[in-house]
Amino acid sequence: MQFADRLQNVETSAIRELFKLLGTPGIVSFAGGFPDSAMFDVDGIREASQRALDEAGALQYGATEGYEPLRSELSAFMKGKGVDVAPQGLIVTTGSQQALDLIGKTLIGPGDKVIVEGPTFLATIQCFRLYGAQLISAPIDGEGVKTDELEKLIEEHRPKFVYLIPTFGNPSGALLNLERRKKVLEMAVKHNTVIVEDDPYGDLYFTETPPPPSLMALTAQVPGSRELLVHCGSMSKVLSPGLRVGWMIAPPALLANAVMCKQFSDAHTSTFAQATAAQYLKSGRMPATLARVRQVYAGRCDAMADALKADLGDAVTFTKPQGGLFFWARLTGANGGPTDASAFAKKAIEQLVAFVPGAPFFAEKPDVATLRLSFATADVARIKDGIARLAKAL
Amino acid sequence: MQFADRLQNVETSAIRELFKLLGTPGIVSFAGGFPDSAMFDVDGIREASQRALDEAGALQYGATEGYEPLRSELSAFMKGKGVDVAPQGLIVTTGSQQALDLIGKTLIGPGDKVIVEGPTFLATIQCFRLYGAQLISAPIDGEGVKTDELEKLIEEHRPKFVYLIPTFGNPSGALLNLERRKKVLEMAVKHNTVIVEDDPYGDLYFTETPPPPSLMALTAQVPGSRELLVHCGSMSKVLSPGLRVGWMIAPPALLANAVMCKQFSDAHTSTFAQATAAQYLKSGRMPATLARVRQVYAGRCDAMADALKADLGDAVTFTKPQGGLFFWARLTGANGGPTDASAFAKKAIEQLVAFVPGAPFFAEKPDVATLRLSFATADVARIKDGIARLAKAL
Repeated sequence: MQFADRLQNVETSAIRELFKLLGTPGIVSFAGGFPDSAMFDVDGIREASQRALDEAGALQYGATEGYEPLRSELSAFMKGKGVDVAPQGLIVTTGSQQALDLIGKTLIGPGDKVIVEGPTFLATIQCFRLYGAQLISAPIDGEGVKTDELEKLIEEHRPKFVYLIPTFGNPSGALLNLERRKKVLEMAVKHNTVIVEDDPYGDLYFTETPPPPSLMALTAQVPGSRELLVHCGSMSKVLSPGLRVGWMIAPPALLANAVMCKQFSDAHTSTFAQATAAQYLKSGRMPATLARVRQVYAGRCDAMADALKADLGDAVTFTKPQGGLFFWARLTGANGGPTDASAFAKKAIEQLVAFVPGAPFFAEKPDVATLRLSFATADVARIKDGIARLAKAL
Repeated sequence: MQFADRLQNVETSAIRELFKLLGTPGIVSFAGGFPDSAMFDVDGIREASQRALDEAGALQYGATEGYEPLRSELSAFMKGKGVDVAPQGLIVTTGSQQALDLIGKTLIGPGDKVIVEGPTFLATIQCFRLYGAQLISAPIDGEGVKTDELEKLIEEHRPKFVYLIPTFGNPSGALLNLERRKKVLEMAVKHNTVIVEDDPYGDLYFTETPPPPSLMALTAQVPGSRELLVHCGSMSKVLSPGLRVGWMIAPPALLANAVMCKQFSDAHTSTFAQATAAQYLKSGRMPATLARVRQVYAGRCDAMADALKADLGDAVTFTKPQGGLFFWARLTGANGGPTDASAFAKKAIEQLVAFVPGAPFFAEKPDVATLRLSFATADVARIKDGIARLAKAL
């Protein structure tokens, strides 16, 4: 059987090999990229799903754009986050992963350049490469993408678009500061460049006050930027990944083409899942759920930061995240310690603790000293235990 | 914003314009391609969804290949239809539409030739064209694709694969006879050509005994054919389209590549929907549901056949379907009657009855005299009423 050439652009083995080892009994895993199942509001989702089944349309085919009651609820949900979008200004996607796929399908042709953060979400890299994208990496620090360097790259490469996870990025955990956010929007307008804002983690902040507004919310302050901004949202990290409900806000022409492509990708997102998500949002339980999730993850984040400092000392550097699911750390090699995260990951597995080496998260110029640790799924005691094991692996 | 070139391969306006008219109050619509919501076993699905929520994994991320309990149930379901497939030999897709998308993504490169039936499923045409396919139409009659002509086309075009809906095709309603089924498998082996069997309607038969076995079931009789056959199944027509649960059986290499592509398309199909479908299959309610659906649709099919004969006489020809959802008819022009289904559709709308003109279902050489009538969603009284209105429109 002869497969399409596009498959040759993708490499998935690096992390897959590691994940095979995760089945080892007794392992403490910081490797996952998922939320803690124990945080799911099962009772609330159960009630919502029952009410959903009382609706006439919940089991039938639905509009490709999305189930109208959900689009209305999402419009209100986004309004609560400072984004003014009509229900018709967003479409529902099968998780925000599908939003990425539709962006690729509608915008990327073979050889087109796309700028992403270095590091960025692994599945974004592969998703865009499947459409033939050539990815350019823009460097980041603890406050997100370095906008001066990003602008140089935009001028040099004239990309089809720039893809950013400005708020608690995966894997970086970084939070793009307000000044840089405005700069991103200004350079979008100045260079007529589309910006894709992927925002699955924005609601998971641990601070008293929310993080800076999303790029989408800030477009109101930068004339012309709304017409160049795409925003991807998700229920996966705060409500349930198993529903597979995400959404995309985009300029009308892009939204129309994405709908056309979605029609032939999966016709529409599960109406049952959409109706359940809509009923959940309507039930008013979301604020309490978010508050609970934030509090628990904040405690785990604190525990991991403390343990990393206490147990690993100057063997690693990191910026403590203010939200999200991830620590992004870098091996320093201090005192003859390790500098290759991939080799260190193997030693860690021997000590029954797992993390993900950072190199595969780079579309180009991988930094092999980096690694990603998720604090989401282990409780505080296991986090302490796991970091102690990491120290042993040093 | 500059979109990808692939979007230029797709044309969706033909039917969309007609569907806008379907909102007209009081219209009897034979235009839809969906099952009747009144046939859904809401109580059974409700119970299944409740049991699904008792499972630990139902709201969490899941394997891209599919939720294991559902893969096991689907393996058993297929065994009941004469197909021997292990749970690992199939993957779950977000409706069978996604199976088509994954087939396109893994196999079709720009300019690749694919043979489809003329007419075939509209969303297949557009889905494959988005990946750059050049589609070749193989002619059909009331017993499905004409295998002699198909073989000539395979020899001439050396297609990447052949796509067929052998059982109660959409839009044709045609049932590929047993002899031709075997011929298709034999020519797959002879010409080393992949065959894609799309089978969403196979369970909806109206005869005492089931239709001939699926191509997948028949591979056991034709050595070497299993390695060249892809089978797409769906819960949409018999249980609920709103769950968006389909599946694909394929040779291991194709299945592995489809999983890789699916990972970046939507990560996985809604776990909640999958767990619900699995619990439904496990509940043992499916046979009774199928029996009920078959009986109701059979009655509507009879009513439509009788009414077409009585009211339209020799103005149309058709083969009465033995299952599925559709009549495929052809305007004869007898007694100065219409021969252009598109013009006739507009006159029909004036009489408050709708159907879909057949031309868009042809990937090439459209037959403008053809039309598709669904008998699935109107009850017997409305079918009689609607066909009487069609007669007036003549």
